[in-house]
Amino acid sequence: MERIDVEKTASRGIAAAVAYKYLEPDWTPDMTLLAEEEVEAEQQRFAAVKGAVLQELGELAAENEIFAAHLEIADDFMLQEGITSKIRDEKKNAQLAVHEVVEEFAAVFAAMDDAYMKERGADIKDVGKRFLAGLKGIKRPDLGSLSSEVIVVAKDLYPSDTVKLSPELVKGIITEEGGVTSHVSIIAKSMNIPTLVGVKGILDKVEDGMMVCMDAEKGIIVTDPDASVLSEYQEKKKAYEEQRRHLESLRNVPAVTKDGKRISLCANVGNVEDIRKALPMNIDGVGLFRSEFLYMENTHFPTEEEQFEVYKEAAMLCPQELTIRTLDIGGDKDLSYFDFEKEENPFLGWRAIRISLDMKEMFKEQLRAILRASAFGHVRIMFPMIISLEELREAKALVEECKKELSAEGKVYDEKIELGMMMETPASVLLAETFAKEADFFSIGTNDLTQYLLAVDRGNKKIADRYDYFHPAVVSAIGQIIRAGHKEGIKVGMCGEMAGDKRAVPILLELGLDEFSMSAGSIDYVREQIINM
Amino acid sequence: MERIDVEKTASRGIAAAVAYKYLEPDWTPDMTLLAEEEVEAEQQRFAAVKGAVLQELGELAAENEIFAAHLEIADDFMLQEGITSKIRDEKKNAQLAVHEVVEEFAAVFAAMDDAYMKERGADIKDVGKRFLAGLKGIKRPDLGSLSSEVIVVAKDLYPSDTVKLSPELVKGIITEEGGVTSHVSIIAKSMNIPTLVGVKGILDKVEDGMMVCMDAEKGIIVTDPDASVLSEYQEKKKAYEEQRRHLESLRNVPAVTKDGKRISLCANVGNVEDIRKALPMNIDGVGLFRSEFLYMENTHFPTEEEQFEVYKEAAMLCPQELTIRTLDIGGDKDLSYFDFEKEENPFLGWRAIRISLDMKEMFKEQLRAILRASAFGHVRIMFPMIISLEELREAKALVEECKKELSAEGKVYDEKIELGMMMETPASVLLAETFAKEADFFSIGTNDLTQYLLAVDRGNKKIADRYDYFHPAVVSAIGQIIRAGHKEGIKVGMCGEMAGDKRAVPILLELGLDEFSMSAGSIDYVREQIINM
Repeated sequence: MERIDVEKTASRGIAAAVAYKYLEPDWTPDMTLLAEEEVEAEQQRFAAVKGAVLQELGELAAENEIFAAHLEIADDFMLQEGITSKIRDEKKNAQLAVHEVVEEFAAVFAAMDDAYMKERGADIKDVGKRFLAGLKGIKRPDLGSLSSEVIVVAKDLYPSDTVKLSPELVKGIITEEGGVTSHVSIIAKSMNIPTLVGVKGILDKVEDGMMVCMDAEKGIIVTDPDASVLSEYQEKKKAYEEQRRHLESLRNVPAVTKDGKRISLCANVGNVEDIRKALPMNIDGVGLFRSEFLYMENTHFPTEEEQFEVYKEAAMLCPQELTIRTLDIGGDKDLSYFDFEKEENPFLGWRAIRISLDMKEMFKEQLRAILRASAFGHVRIMFPMIISLEELREAKALVEECKKELSAEGKVYDEKIELGMMMETPASVLLAETFAKEADFFSIGTNDLTQYLLAVDRGNKKIADRYDYFHPAVVSAIGQIIRAGHKEGIKVGMCGEMAGDKRAVPILLELGLDEFSMSAGSIDYVREQIINM
Repeated sequence: MERIDVEKTASRGIAAAVAYKYLEPDWTPDMTLLAEEEVEAEQQRFAAVKGAVLQELGELAAENEIFAAHLEIADDFMLQEGITSKIRDEKKNAQLAVHEVVEEFAAVFAAMDDAYMKERGADIKDVGKRFLAGLKGIKRPDLGSLSSEVIVVAKDLYPSDTVKLSPELVKGIITEEGGVTSHVSIIAKSMNIPTLVGVKGILDKVEDGMMVCMDAEKGIIVTDPDASVLSEYQEKKKAYEEQRRHLESLRNVPAVTKDGKRISLCANVGNVEDIRKALPMNIDGVGLFRSEFLYMENTHFPTEEEQFEVYKEAAMLCPQELTIRTLDIGGDKDLSYFDFEKEENPFLGWRAIRISLDMKEMFKEQLRAILRASAFGHVRIMFPMIISLEELREAKALVEECKKELSAEGKVYDEKIELGMMMETPASVLLAETFAKEADFFSIGTNDLTQYLLAVDRGNKKIADRYDYFHPAVVSAIGQIIRAGHKEGIKVGMCGEMAGDKRAVPILLELGLDEFSMSAGSIDYVREQIINM
């Protein structure tokens, strides 16, 4: 019996079952250099495999949207160019060409700080395996052929592995790699399969058929448990399922504290689909719509029309407010179609509102799209990374300019649209009273705020123990922001990770926070905490 | 007539004289690959040139300390290894090998954010030219052969070019490259030759013999001036010299404001030599001794003994306080003998006190060295980048531990040594009142503080206009720090660039700053400003 503590939970729950080690085939490419006269045949060989892969993915795309993304990757111009030119110019065989190009592209994504983008590297690798399987003539193992209840233990699971996965048989998942925003995490969450990721060395510690217990609430794995531990986990599992049912039953209870304050519970979303998924949690609105995904998952700066369609759909879906944060890109978040110069310290670089104000025409396309959508719901605009009154005023003036243009064109919008700002730079804390006089609402971005206040990059593992939003300087800053906002009669929300951490609920209520906005999965927990306060 | 505005002044003053274009010989290496049997002869050829260069530099080293550094570079193990292995293993001829290795090494330094280290690349290139001159059999032009008054206009001037430069004939220097901390800047300053560096395109705008006026106070160059401009500059030159004499005459006037507050005027230094250079300015002490140079200009972590010797000499030289900042390394400041992992955002990374507290044995060597030096003067210890009380307490506890060890060994030190901290993180501002209870003094580091408060990397040109220590959030933070310090009765100094900016004097005095610490060249100006307040 061995206990392993795991840092992060990818999908909550408790499980106890025998281990099924899911081992990958050997993907090492056969590496050969081609003679000039072999190049043409190799190109044709690759073209044939590519055709088969595109067809495969085309069929899978109908079943699962993830494969629609894979289809685009497999047919991506740059990727194809890379592979064919390695065959043509470097005389590499197709396996090696695929391997190298896939690794290069995946590394670009893996190097990004944003966890979401980092995991897109996994998609590219998954597609790469599809090409390699075709080229090598091998088949990937299939989780669809299981016949009894198991906990799957793997190096990593790719979308292609998980698509046939049955929640009746797979009671839990443990992987050595992957993060909480990886595909396996997303899929496991959607299927309610308890999942722990990033568990280094687990494949060495588990044998096929060995009993394994896992607590994906607290992050505990027990391999080869004795009878008492096993029955303890069976009890825990029951209690957990009970608690889930209890939390779900609370969804219609309004989030009112014991002393009568109604708290707004909102979702952070990246697209319209996320809003749909959050609606069952009975949200009060969207506290953060990350408009950057519209830009990142695109081949060009999205036009006003393209954006308008998305924002309009979101506004119509949203029960109450839809808070759209203007483009928060740069530094760690790149666009494939725009050249950001490499920066020494991207988190202290050209990003967010700085880019928008430096590229006014692009910014105005977004503002016009949001304004037009505001005719279809309760839309609010939120500016990120503001450090000075000049910036806030300049952004507001651009909104005014867009309003005038739209009026002249006879287009409708909410004339009283609220213009708020993220409170995420230390400068905004020190000037909170000034900003409160000119912004319609505040939303505290604890991720960046903590990182700047403490001068600790939240993605830097070497100093991870120093990143802490319970640090007294952060708590003090939050208090200052809320007091400044309330003094001027504006609402103060929070859309950083702290808002979804139920341990933070007591202190944030004490400081007077009006709105908690978080990823959908945390809402039930935070609501329960608030109701009990 | 054309007026050119220049951003930064390397050495102050006014000049008007004819231009002398100082053009470099063609340093392009002859590139050839060697046959196996030629390698040995090429190695011998290079060894002979190296011997001659070492001898040359050995002689020059006696005249000018810069060449002592060059001698070390020329004989550097890594550099020599690089060159000889390129000849041996890559079969490159010596010219190409020297060229490549020099460029590679120089690029490493040029990539550093620290302006001082960046310019060390110029030393390496200078040494490289010495090797190339020997290998190509060419001579560098010689500024020692001038016969009339000129303003030297060049791409860049290397130490070897400037060493024979006569201040009687060279009335001014303008270079296309180089920064304010480059060798040409340092030497020009020590000779009081007005100098402007980084003036792109100047070689195209100036003809040999053309009259040129330069104001290296305000950063103005006028090429081919008309008679009225020329006489205006002759007037300015006189007025400037008058003012210099006036400033020098003020050196013995104590820095007391009109309302009677005695302000401490201190120097920021990187080594003992800097202290010697600052003494004529009648400084009150050293507000910042950057101990990292002791580590950076070394091949190993300096031992307690090595550090003790340096600190002791500094303590004995210093008229009053010598404030030694403990190792502020990491991120943008590397050590050749220690592997810092690459970080995405080094300014938000593993640096300064974080490294010291994670490498306690190394830290204690430094603390013991400083403590022992404290027996020889008024030494103070200052901790950089503190964000939490835990860190400050841990650092102070280590000092206590070192004191006990020294006592047990019968070694003397100042038992009441003051332990202060840099105020350079936003967290330290928010917790200033708490810190003031446990630190013996504060020193505000405006460079980092501004960068963190505004989330603006001060080295990032794309957002340079957003970096501003007059930003209201920075000024407010400075005020909070000073008030917090005074409430607990401790002195508050400043050692960032703002302290040496005479425009900032009125506001800093108003906020109650007790000590201004700056580079030696600014002290006269700040003193005058204070006396007049």
